[in-house]
Amino acid sequence: MYQDHTTTEIDNFLTKSQVAFYQYKNSSLKERANFMRTIALEIEALGEELIETAAAETHLSEKRLYAERKRTIFQLNSYANAAERGDWLEVRIDIGSASATPPKPDLRKMLVPLGPVVVFGASNFPFAYSTAGGDTACAFAAGCPVIVKAHPAHVKTSTLVAKAILSAVEKCKMPEGIFAHVYGADFKIGTYLVKHEAVKAVGFTGSYGGGRALFDLANQRKTPIPVFAEMGSINPVFLLPNKLENDHQWIAEQMSRSITQDMGQFCTNPGLIIAVKSDALGLYIKQLVQNIEEVQPARMLHKGIAKSFTENRNKAITQDDVEVIYENEIQTDDEKGIVTIATVSGKSFLNNHQLHEEVFGPFSLLVICEDEKELLTVAESLEGQLTTTLMATKSDITHHSQLLNILKEKCGRLVLNGVPTGVEVALAMHHGGPFPSSTDSRFTAVGADGIKRFARPVSFQNWNDEFLPDELKNENPLNIWRTVNNELTKNVILEI
Amino acid sequence: MYQDHTTTEIDNFLTKSQVAFYQYKNSSLKERANFMRTIALEIEALGEELIETAAAETHLSEKRLYAERKRTIFQLNSYANAAERGDWLEVRIDIGSASATPPKPDLRKMLVPLGPVVVFGASNFPFAYSTAGGDTACAFAAGCPVIVKAHPAHVKTSTLVAKAILSAVEKCKMPEGIFAHVYGADFKIGTYLVKHEAVKAVGFTGSYGGGRALFDLANQRKTPIPVFAEMGSINPVFLLPNKLENDHQWIAEQMSRSITQDMGQFCTNPGLIIAVKSDALGLYIKQLVQNIEEVQPARMLHKGIAKSFTENRNKAITQDDVEVIYENEIQTDDEKGIVTIATVSGKSFLNNHQLHEEVFGPFSLLVICEDEKELLTVAESLEGQLTTTLMATKSDITHHSQLLNILKEKCGRLVLNGVPTGVEVALAMHHGGPFPSSTDSRFTAVGADGIKRFARPVSFQNWNDEFLPDELKNENPLNIWRTVNNELTKNVILEI
Repeated sequence: MYQDHTTTEIDNFLTKSQVAFYQYKNSSLKERANFMRTIALEIEALGEELIETAAAETHLSEKRLYAERKRTIFQLNSYANAAERGDWLEVRIDIGSASATPPKPDLRKMLVPLGPVVVFGASNFPFAYSTAGGDTACAFAAGCPVIVKAHPAHVKTSTLVAKAILSAVEKCKMPEGIFAHVYGADFKIGTYLVKHEAVKAVGFTGSYGGGRALFDLANQRKTPIPVFAEMGSINPVFLLPNKLENDHQWIAEQMSRSITQDMGQFCTNPGLIIAVKSDALGLYIKQLVQNIEEVQPARMLHKGIAKSFTENRNKAITQDDVEVIYENEIQTDDEKGIVTIATVSGKSFLNNHQLHEEVFGPFSLLVICEDEKELLTVAESLEGQLTTTLMATKSDITHHSQLLNILKEKCGRLVLNGVPTGVEVALAMHHGGPFPSSTDSRFTAVGADGIKRFARPVSFQNWNDEFLPDELKNENPLNIWRTVNNELTKNVILEI
Repeated sequence: MYQDHTTTEIDNFLTKSQVAFYQYKNSSLKERANFMRTIALEIEALGEELIETAAAETHLSEKRLYAERKRTIFQLNSYANAAERGDWLEVRIDIGSASATPPKPDLRKMLVPLGPVVVFGASNFPFAYSTAGGDTACAFAAGCPVIVKAHPAHVKTSTLVAKAILSAVEKCKMPEGIFAHVYGADFKIGTYLVKHEAVKAVGFTGSYGGGRALFDLANQRKTPIPVFAEMGSINPVFLLPNKLENDHQWIAEQMSRSITQDMGQFCTNPGLIIAVKSDALGLYIKQLVQNIEEVQPARMLHKGIAKSFTENRNKAITQDDVEVIYENEIQTDDEKGIVTIATVSGKSFLNNHQLHEEVFGPFSLLVICEDEKELLTVAESLEGQLTTTLMATKSDITHHSQLLNILKEKCGRLVLNGVPTGVEVALAMHHGGPFPSSTDSRFTAVGADGIKRFARPVSFQNWNDEFLPDELKNENPLNIWRTVNNELTKNVILEI
């Protein structure tokens, strides 16, 4: 059971995906939305078995898993709504005129699906970023078949969710090849999938090493394909002086929760805290340690992650000038993470690239800068991030315009007086930042704009109305927003 | 004069670009639009000198150059209008609620510029896709500084246009580093630019070889960057039986013009014509040859292109089963192109990949299929194309739904009863198709949607209204379209 699929089996899946694509791409927005909503219902119908299976496989708490299942269902339903609303199709119509000099062609453009999409599930989100997670939901919304490579760390959970999807396929009479579930603990399986000419895009959530490898493979193909790899980051949090002075307790409370929640196993975990030295900073540190002492360390997602965490944490804390200011007792159970807070001077941080690398787990490094100038240099030295957070009063913001100007270049989401963890599923969310936090800063992995990852525009020139897709017809039968002659409107186009 | 710049000089340009970016990215949409309109005026002010210089360098007719200058000015002005309209910013706002359980963060997202953009001009469009061409206009609209590598084939023309841009920079008091003009006949200069960490995106129009090389370089960087290379294609034209029967003369007239206009030196030149054998096809061929005989061959853009054309044409016509049905007399002047029409059987075309490659210039290959089934197989065998054209009656379309379903996957623009040449500058234009016609099928090189190539989203979470960019403020001071709580609107957001 759960044995790796052979390349022959995968070829067979992909042939079916291609056949399914030629049908599914012509489905209506309503049919796609209905299919996605049915998947949501089928997942709900899995009931307790799903929660129990995931809890056993991932060590995540039931509370967390209930919340994540809810999020997964919400994603499917809200992306279904967005798919149906049709804004994502970016319909543009420039009405032609045969009598103009020179004659003006009639041009009508909309997004169409790319083709079969391979999704690699995330270890840390067994529901929301795995088999029926955000990438799968977006691909289905766009009109693409999906091939999921089950994450080896929660293969039973993935198989249950795959069953729910297949049941929805049947209930909605979708083409058989619209979904395939591939087992592959061996890295070769993933490689084979990404290099396969039938595959037209890839969604991935995981480590930098894994994401970069897939990105490179995809670009070396005869026909390169986009890889949307969300590879995590260290999510710097800047504590500005006035805010620290006024609110160090509140900041410590927020940060201690954000660092340790689910053992810090989030791509938005605040792995870096940056501030100029001050008395208030000293008080903050004291309070942070006090809060974190109360946290009970838990088992990490799986042995591999626990081992990497320990290794990366140890590498970080043994760097020059790094001082551990808190670590909980080392557990005999090696799957439990050692919650760790360390400090380092701005100068040492600037001179040591190792400290800029993500330690996935409950670890946070506090960079103590000599002065505002050094703080700016540290900000400039940062690589691309999913998020950057500012703890700041209005006066801080006014006095740090240069810092803000720098930080906007470093991230996909800029949080003020909050924490980076907790990625709201909303259209205005952007989850994806400059490289290396993601492979394509122009697209989001969370929120319905993620649908656009799996689509491309096609223009129809001088087609008769009857042969155009409904989205582009004069009468606007779907009643969607369209940009007609440069103006957004839902109006019908009157025949000339 | 026009000596290649040294790497030290280029470093210096790019340092200035980076400084300029930190100012220019904060410019208002109005300021950007004004700058672009000023460039248009400055180009116009170059007067006859520009036309004469380009005519001498490119061998393009003055008529064509006047038209191209007009197009270039139109592009700058219409992209300025689009920039100011602000739809391209894709503003999304999800209003937060502190009292919700759990509290809902306030999220506001818009596109921001990527950073300094390198533009490689096209040899075949000395104005419209060169120094102040589509890529440059889009980058300026997005808020990015531009570094143009002058095309060696029209370096004097490029230098004149660069002067016009620099004059606009001064008049509009733009930061000095917003524009740089680099000379580099050596391929190393281009390589150096694309590998430079200060560069954040690349625009290119040219050959597959050149585009692919830049794409590979950019992806191998430590921080990969997007390359928008528009690499041309063979633009298949399908002649369907009923249309041929009814209209072979009209088709021949359209096609002969499209194949030979400006010596076929367009990326949308119809290099492939596909039809099932029939009496009507025979009549069409006769008419096509008759029309083309009347065309006076002209000098090609430059020696290099003339040489490549001759080589590629000779390679194509010496392939197995290829028969030349028309070629004009070979000229003593080796810079003149030999207008050539050849035929080949569907079977031979399917078995010979060489015939799927672009012959840039006045060459078109007619693939004669045995039957409808072979026509479908030929359609399936095609690589990604910028355009695909159908010559078809309503009855043809109804009877060829499978063909249509295939062709939609093969191109970025689907033309009905027209010709692929003549790429309208309009929002609904899509100029960019599946690989290898372009490196990124999701973005267009023509039309104001091209602005989005040089931008990425950033979300602001829980920011006070006063610190948000104007685009995201409650009162919508720019009066732009925004998606607020999933609904497109220009409405003001009322404070809660």
